[in-house]
Amino acid sequence: MKRCLIIGAAPVSGALLEQFSGREKDYIICADGGYQSAVDAGLRPDLVVGDFDSMERPKDAGVEILQVAAEKDDTDMMLALKEGAARGYEEFVLLGSLGGRLDHTVANLQAVAWGLERGLFVMLADENNLVAMLRGDSAGVPRLEGYYLSLFSYSEQCRGVTVRGVKYPLEDAVLTQAFPLGVSNEIVEREAFLRVEEGTLLIVMSREA
Amino acid sequence: MKRCLIIGAAPVSGALLEQFSGREKDYIICADGGYQSAVDAGLRPDLVVGDFDSMERPKDAGVEILQVAAEKDDTDMMLALKEGAARGYEEFVLLGSLGGRLDHTVANLQAVAWGLERGLFVMLADENNLVAMLRGDSAGVPRLEGYYLSLFSYSEQCRGVTVRGVKYPLEDAVLTQAFPLGVSNEIVEREAFLRVEEGTLLIVMSREA
Repeated sequence: MKRCLIIGAAPVSGALLEQFSGREKDYIICADGGYQSAVDAGLRPDLVVGDFDSMERPKDAGVEILQVAAEKDDTDMMLALKEGAARGYEEFVLLGSLGGRLDHTVANLQAVAWGLERGLFVMLADENNLVAMLRGDSAGVPRLEGYYLSLFSYSEQCRGVTVRGVKYPLEDAVLTQAFPLGVSNEIVEREAFLRVEEGTLLIVMSREA
Repeated sequence: MKRCLIIGAAPVSGALLEQFSGREKDYIICADGGYQSAVDAGLRPDLVVGDFDSMERPKDAGVEILQVAAEKDDTDMMLALKEGAARGYEEFVLLGSLGGRLDHTVANLQAVAWGLERGLFVMLADENNLVAMLRGDSAGVPRLEGYYLSLFSYSEQCRGVTVRGVKYPLEDAVLTQAFPLGVSNEIVEREAFLRVEEGTLLIVMSREA
């Protein structure tokens, strides 16, 4: 299955776009202002979703355009994700989704949760952070040089949280949403093993900028 | 009751510190690296909490120091908040709490929720963002020029959400944690009225950087 890259309006470097757009068959959606980031990086999106309120409608005849109302319940990023899901994609990477306005960063965390509820894998990425969620499931997380691994309960509680292959392992622990246990762990093996039996685990990998 | 300012290690400008430290009687705690920000801004903290792993122990004899273990469950910010709460403060502003590593930003959101559970009011602030939470309660939010008001369900659901005095009002609405409804609203009166009957509402005010 092809992966869907969504490029949002938050700052995104050409280097990051290059890093993630290497897979030739990826489907690329730009959410409104993200179109300029793509063009600047020499990428040609497959689809541009936006209200074209703050930016001009793209003139490139080869790019499909989905124009939406300026006053809407969804953010442009969310509309792009929904459109990608409607087109059958199940794996998403959202670039230009972090590091801009905090309200948009939080909205994009909710977009990850929205995907999870529908069985979609959604990851947020910028130069120094990777974000994903896991619910009632297990996963391996590869060690990335210089990155810390932090785990949070996104649901009110996470039960049966196990983390192995890290400096501070956990076995069958309970995390709550009102207590930031699990910040700045370090993966010490080739990959960490994560499991959460109940609840939604928010996984953040960050490094110093 | 005096307010407690906590200065964390994320970037914080002198202008922001000046803006928030105007109230002479505020109690100022620096969380580890935040001490340097305070010194740079000419502020003298009342207390410095940290492991002094990545920074030197302050030499100013007039500053109380609480040294903690380098390997601990809490973040430095969380330790500072707990210490402030133990000293009887009920209102906190956390500066240097946003805009650094995303894992710390998320941990600081959890610190706001930690406070809420204990009846404390905790606000996060940087140059362009203000964050607070409201649970089973109502509040007025003043209009700030150039800022958008965004509301998120921090708990799995928020029921009975009412927002008045804004461009897109809500009456008795349900917000969920997996759907970013409520991003980029605008306060059109002197202040917005917010109410949430059940659940924890995450309030984010952001402006363009």
